[in-house]
Amino acid sequence: MKIGIYGYGNLGRAAEIVSGDFGITVSAVFTRRDPDSVRTLRAPVYRRECVRAFSEEIDCMLMCGGSYTDLRCDTPDVARLFNTVDSFDIHSDIEKHREQVDCAAKETEHTSVVAVGWDPGLLSVFRAYFSGIMPRGEVNTFWGRGVSQGHSEVIRSIKGVKRAVEYTVPQSEAVMLARVGRTVDKYVRHKRECYVVAEECEQERIVREIKSIPEYYEGYETDVHFIDEEEFIKNHLYMPHKGECIAFNMSGVYREHISRAEMSVALDSNPEFTASVMLAYAKACVGLNAEGCFGAFTAFDVAPRYLVSDAVAQKVI
Amino acid sequence: MKIGIYGYGNLGRAAEIVSGDFGITVSAVFTRRDPDSVRTLRAPVYRRECVRAFSEEIDCMLMCGGSYTDLRCDTPDVARLFNTVDSFDIHSDIEKHREQVDCAAKETEHTSVVAVGWDPGLLSVFRAYFSGIMPRGEVNTFWGRGVSQGHSEVIRSIKGVKRAVEYTVPQSEAVMLARVGRTVDKYVRHKRECYVVAEECEQERIVREIKSIPEYYEGYETDVHFIDEEEFIKNHLYMPHKGECIAFNMSGVYREHISRAEMSVALDSNPEFTASVMLAYAKACVGLNAEGCFGAFTAFDVAPRYLVSDAVAQKVI
Repeated sequence: MKIGIYGYGNLGRAAEIVSGDFGITVSAVFTRRDPDSVRTLRAPVYRRECVRAFSEEIDCMLMCGGSYTDLRCDTPDVARLFNTVDSFDIHSDIEKHREQVDCAAKETEHTSVVAVGWDPGLLSVFRAYFSGIMPRGEVNTFWGRGVSQGHSEVIRSIKGVKRAVEYTVPQSEAVMLARVGRTVDKYVRHKRECYVVAEECEQERIVREIKSIPEYYEGYETDVHFIDEEEFIKNHLYMPHKGECIAFNMSGVYREHISRAEMSVALDSNPEFTASVMLAYAKACVGLNAEGCFGAFTAFDVAPRYLVSDAVAQKVI
Repeated sequence: MKIGIYGYGNLGRAAEIVSGDFGITVSAVFTRRDPDSVRTLRAPVYRRECVRAFSEEIDCMLMCGGSYTDLRCDTPDVARLFNTVDSFDIHSDIEKHREQVDCAAKETEHTSVVAVGWDPGLLSVFRAYFSGIMPRGEVNTFWGRGVSQGHSEVIRSIKGVKRAVEYTVPQSEAVMLARVGRTVDKYVRHKRECYVVAEECEQERIVREIKSIPEYYEGYETDVHFIDEEEFIKNHLYMPHKGECIAFNMSGVYREHISRAEMSVALDSNPEFTASVMLAYAKACVGLNAEGCFGAFTAFDVAPRYLVSDAVAQKVI
């Protein structure tokens, strides 16, 4: 199987790194930068404008841009030419995004899987299973402590920001309450720690802008720390992350029986794990397309069967 | 939605208990015993032979017999008349069972989901996701501490045993090794704790016989405790269980990044949780049937979408 990588930042690079583990070849990387300035591991680099020339050669395009700035437009555009997978991560806009990609992909009988990273994506799937099996239960998700790509990227898009990283940190009281089935308001479940490199004269405005970004920061406890470039490079290039999904249910004639299901991921490299989820769904995407399932799908629409070979399915059932 | 319950032991009773949480009505219970001898919570009880008369009334039949003794024959038989869900749990025979049910269900345009409990079923699904996303990783499953019905039953079949229960207990060293990606031999992953009621003069022989049962006990660390009937009734009728699935992977240019995904369930009532998984898939089964997907499916074939309403999907994505 051959893929293209559309956008070569942290995620695109991670996709190239892990592709070999999936037996997948990266045929080409596409960038809006000067291709000569982009250093990949192995894959040849082309300008985004050249992408059409590869429509016969590439089975699936991994869309590796940011949700906020790139994917809203790029995925529908590219879905007219290729099967695509993206990790669009603005939860509230996923259905709208899927519909837009769906129209584009159906026009040309392509297949897209949208919003598949570890969350949204893998954790969404677990939340769906837990909710389906425990319809009266409570399902809570906690992220971190770890770098959120989306939350970091949205800070980097602010004028005057040179470098930025955001750590999402679960509030431990909220985690403990989830284990006994109590859900607390989303704004007090996590806090947000931001480390930003910027000129001193810009800092006040940057803090204001960060804290007012809806969905991402508005309403959350948010600390913004300005640091110099040297400290940033020393301490904040590493991208670990964690996530945890806790389901709690009571059943029985007297609701005397507790069941608890928990799922967690702990990742040294968030981009490499996100890329791994995307690559697993790239295989599924190509399989769905071969069966004539055109249009755009989320992880909820894809049966687990498509992620594993028959031999693996036989082994793990 | 209306279901029937076919077999009214621990599992059938649990299905009736939890059905209300799913907004599902139990229209009838079918038994091979004298219906007057079966006490349900609410549902009317009929002989198994009367099942045909209900084919218009029941959307899906929950097959609540044992895998060894009942489901191999009963599910294909009933799948000709109804949509069915079972929790067939002999892992190595699932594909054969599915094929047999598939033929039966397709004949009459019915839909069946087989082998959906917590394991096989929910944990199988997680193993598939983990394996698909981490194709070079290690995925290990641990069961317990909890009662294994199969291991208990095989002791009860020994001459002189009045009552017996087996607890499967994961070995903590093996769990720790799984967390760092090392798989140990199956015989040292779990130990087996048996509580047996028997005459004193028979005990030595019974211990010898238990420890020499191949597949079940031979080769495993096995403790056999003899207790009196009173203690058995007081302490060993409760059916909690636990299960844990641990995936470990290394990625990166130098394989320097670890990712770990863990999933666990802790259940006060094994039968009620198994029944909950079956009821979630009963909804999926009816949904698949309405879309014209006939035949038999495992949990791997069913997209998560079918387990939740659109409103829930929107919330948990």
